[in-house]
Amino acid sequence: MPITISTKFDFTLDQPTDVILQFEAATIPEQEIVSCNSVLSNSEHCARVPAHDGIGERVLVRAEGKFEVAYDAVVEVKRLTPDISGLAQLAPHELPEDAFEYLLDSTYCPADRFQSIVEEEFGELQGGARVLAIREWVANHLTYTPGSSTSTTTALDSYVERRGICRDYAHVVITMCRASTIPARYVSCFAPGVTPPDFHALAEVFLADETIEGGGAWYIVDATGMAEPGETVKIGVGRDAADVSFLTSFGASHFGNKTVTVTKSD
Amino acid sequence: MPITISTKFDFTLDQPTDVILQFEAATIPEQEIVSCNSVLSNSEHCARVPAHDGIGERVLVRAEGKFEVAYDAVVEVKRLTPDISGLAQLAPHELPEDAFEYLLDSTYCPADRFQSIVEEEFGELQGGARVLAIREWVANHLTYTPGSSTSTTTALDSYVERRGICRDYAHVVITMCRASTIPARYVSCFAPGVTPPDFHALAEVFLADETIEGGGAWYIVDATGMAEPGETVKIGVGRDAADVSFLTSFGASHFGNKTVTVTKSD
Amino acid sequence: MPITISTKFDFTLDQPTDVILQFEAATIPEQEIVSCNSVLSNSEHCARVPAHDGIGERVLVRAEGKFEVAYDAVVEVKRLTPDISGLAQLAPHELPEDAFEYLLDSTYCPADRFQSIVEEEFGELQGGARVLAIREWVANHLTYTPGSSTSTTTALDSYVERRGICRDYAHVVITMCRASTIPARYVSCFAPGVTPPDFHALAEVFLADETIEGGGAWYIVDATGMAEPGETVKIGVGRDAADVSFLTSFGASHFGNKTVTVTKSD
Amino acid sequence: MPITISTKFDFTLDQPTDVILQFEAATIPEQEIVSCNSVLSNSEHCARVPAHDGIGERVLVRAEGKFEVAYDAVVEVKRLTPDISGLAQLAPHELPEDAFEYLLDSTYCPADRFQSIVEEEFGELQGGARVLAIREWVANHLTYTPGSSTSTTTALDSYVERRGICRDYAHVVITMCRASTIPARYVSCFAPGVTPPDFHALAEVFLADETIEGGGAWYIVDATGMAEPGETVKIGVGRDAADVSFLTSFGASHFGNKTVTVTKSD
Repeated sequence: MPITISTKFDFTLDQPTDVILQFEAATIPEQEIVSCNSVLSNSEHCARVPAHDGIGERVLVRAEGKFEVAYDAVVEVKRLTPDISGLAQLAPHELPEDAFEYLLDSTYCPADRFQSIVEEEFGELQGGARVLAIREWVANHLTYTPGSSTSTTTALDSYVERRGICRDYAHVVITMCRASTIPARYVSCFAPGVTPPDFHALAEVFLADETIEGGGAWYIVDATGMAEPGETVKIGVGRDAADVSFLTSFGASHFGNKTVTVTKSD
Repeated sequence: MPITISTKFDFTLDQPTDVILQFEAATIPEQEIVSCNSVLSNSEHCARVPAHDGIGERVLVRAEGKFEVAYDAVVEVKRLTPDISGLAQLAPHELPEDAFEYLLDSTYCPADRFQSIVEEEFGELQGGARVLAIREWVANHLTYTPGSSTSTTTALDSYVERRGICRDYAHVVITMCRASTIPARYVSCFAPGVTPPDFHALAEVFLADETIEGGGAWYIVDATGMAEPGETVKIGVGRDAADVSFLTSFGASHFGNKTVTVTKSD
Repeated sequence: MPITISTKFDFTLDQPTDVILQFEAATIPEQEIVSCNSVLSNSEHCARVPAHDGIGERVLVRAEGKFEVAYDAVVEVKRLTPDISGLAQLAPHELPEDAFEYLLDSTYCPADRFQSIVEEEFGELQGGARVLAIREWVANHLTYTPGSSTSTTTALDSYVERRGICRDYAHVVITMCRASTIPARYVSCFAPGVTPPDFHALAEVFLADETIEGGGAWYIVDATGMAEPGETVKIGVGRDAADVSFLTSFGASHFGNKTVTVTKSD
Repeated sequence: MPITISTKFDFTLDQPTDVILQFEAATIPEQEIVSCNSVLSNSEHCARVPAHDGIGERVLVRAEGKFEVAYDAVVEVKRLTPDISGLAQLAPHELPEDAFEYLLDSTYCPADRFQSIVEEEFGELQGGARVLAIREWVANHLTYTPGSSTSTTTALDSYVERRGICRDYAHVVITMCRASTIPARYVSCFAPGVTPPDFHALAEVFLADETIEGGGAWYIVDATGMAEPGETVKIGVGRDAADVSFLTSFGASHFGNKTVTVTKSD
């Protein structure tokens, strides 16, 4: 079932400024880009580089003044979405190299400080069962509250204030999984069920699967409940929101408008 | 001139716990491992994996009770240490892929928040000249104060409190360089001049060099002034101290003793 | 010269909730309330208590649903506004008891952490001359940026990010003065020059004046430059914004609209 | 039953520095100072002022070099220690003026951010019953861990890390009580059962008691379980540790040794 995506946003740069953009559906085996079209304002230069873990691309632009981005795509998602409740977690030494770094603390995910909490709350559970319990805990204890978080809000803040948006839900899930020695990464994405419509974010965890080369795979976990794993179009991944922001500016920028539409076709 | 390294440390784990260790000189072109010997306590299992950016190795151990590590090595450092004052910085789109991520914020380096400060302090300088001015600023404004920082101290804390240890000096340098759109990473290392003798840390920045494939290279910057780039033995690199801790424990651990000796031979 | 004030604001409480309001010109010798009128929505109960240091009043309300506040007043300000550049600061043991607590750290003013910075920047200056240098520093280094701070932004954040609104300017001034062993407090107020018109905030410092009982007096310091001390109508004082918020709610509240008009009459 | 106190501590000041000391049993109705003796090093000047809320005294000293404090006292505690489980809490508008400020946020007690948590955990309980449930929660969820906190550790940090010392236990209790609209303050004290022997800290809450002028009284709450309310000798009170530190220095100070002995006599 194809997913149709249409987004536009713009921002203004006071002076010539380097900007990183990451807003397009990634070309990866689990999703096929049926069609896509990106239109960007003119810039001093524009380059594309593979993004974190080679998933998706970053667009590097140097520009000044008002800058507009329009992106339209149709994507066919082919992701398998198994029940993860019975999947085991791998010990650190069993992990493939590129999953390993997702055990460590990152900007918004101070996992080391959550070891006591996860032991207390989820001490009896392992692997996929623990991940599902963490997702359940976050879904039940946080209230989805647009406007309640800022670019400096960490998982620790969200955990205490018991509220946030998709970014914050993902950070708390990731932090609790890493504190449980389960690799967890941040995924920016498009998904049809997101309300209000916007770029979305969720977590992915690495769990064992003996049938797969490398001994395991990444599985989507969305504590907001808004995105179906089988309908989620990935943009990029990273340790947390700091790695896959749709707009990173090396200098003052003023954000303008943004519209995002994501629909399922029949 | 060979550098002789000898270190011992131990810690105790209350229960079977996964631990990551990173304490050995890395095998990289710029330093030759003449001899080395690592002796570790028995463990349930022990594996080695390449560390961040493929520089050095992480030792993954699952153990319980008292755990001891002893490491001895002789290393010949062959690093070139040019004057970087005339080197240019590369625009983000010119950077090789593996330098790129070192422009972004990380756990201890909230670079985005320092854009106004670096513009104000160093606005007229670019590239290597700015890096040297940053090193000078940090050397002049921070006071080396053992015991003044903890595992949660960020570059923002150190900048305001104007004090820290090698880890903190490196974080402030890295943060200011990234805020200047210059890739900067954290290096854990051994160096003869460190007082009191201990594991050491410093920053590396990526600057242009047309004679090199990839268009640039990493250069050591030590605002503490304790390590000579030509005598520094690298252990590993990462975005900041969170990536290259010599000991990361996924559960309660109690640190015991540590001795580090680093000497130059004639 | 009378100052005419007119303000209206409203908020909604999901369930019966205790609320503290502090929005009226204080009755103190330095300003005469010529006329005033407060109109509040009906509430389960409503009480008035003296506010911090006995300056102004807090209105305590228990209410539910939409709650509206309208306040109109004409105030004649009689404050003396001497040049403070020659005034000395008092040693802690010379301070009157009620000035003393304004030397200590508070929620948004981590003064203890700024001791090195003020020593480095202003080490040669004392008393009023240092206060004026601090005001100048803050005026020159911060950029007034509506929307850049939140209810958790401290003076440390504003100092590093070099931006904020009146609240943040006041917090940085207060923090630097306390770090200089000069008592400093937070003043919420009305003033004609504030743009855009809103409740305003600034700092007050306690400096020596032998002609006054108690050995000193409080002097207004506004690093935003928007309020003239001689035209400023005080609402209340406290250690920082946490003590004199115009609205503190013990439960969920949703802020609605706010208008503030302050004009000088001839 | 008299309590015998003996304490000594010293610190060194690099240059003439103002210091605030607060280390003596307060003269208040609920405890009788049978005998006391304070011996301090010579200083440039030394003054005494009433401390926060008029409970106890602060000693203000200006000194240089090594400074020693020795204090010996015998104190008879006469405090009533009723069961508070049935006591009601007062609405904000019913509180006496000096209890009111203990509803607000302070440096280490970000109560506003804990409103969701206390509602979720203790939503069915009011007054003394809620206070006892909070004490129980903190006692059960935090682990007493000397060395785990620093001068910047807040109740939010301790809540997440689930550990701390007496200061941190008190801050979490205070924060949760204020978030419950129950006034709570920080008490520094001496108590016989403290292990290892040291200055101690605990919380006090204000609850209704119709038989008392003002409509209520302060009751001791110690989540560490180390201090018996009937044997606790108060030194001072404040919003949190920032108000009643036994040593506050306006300039660099180096702490030396400290011994505290507190015993019950028969």
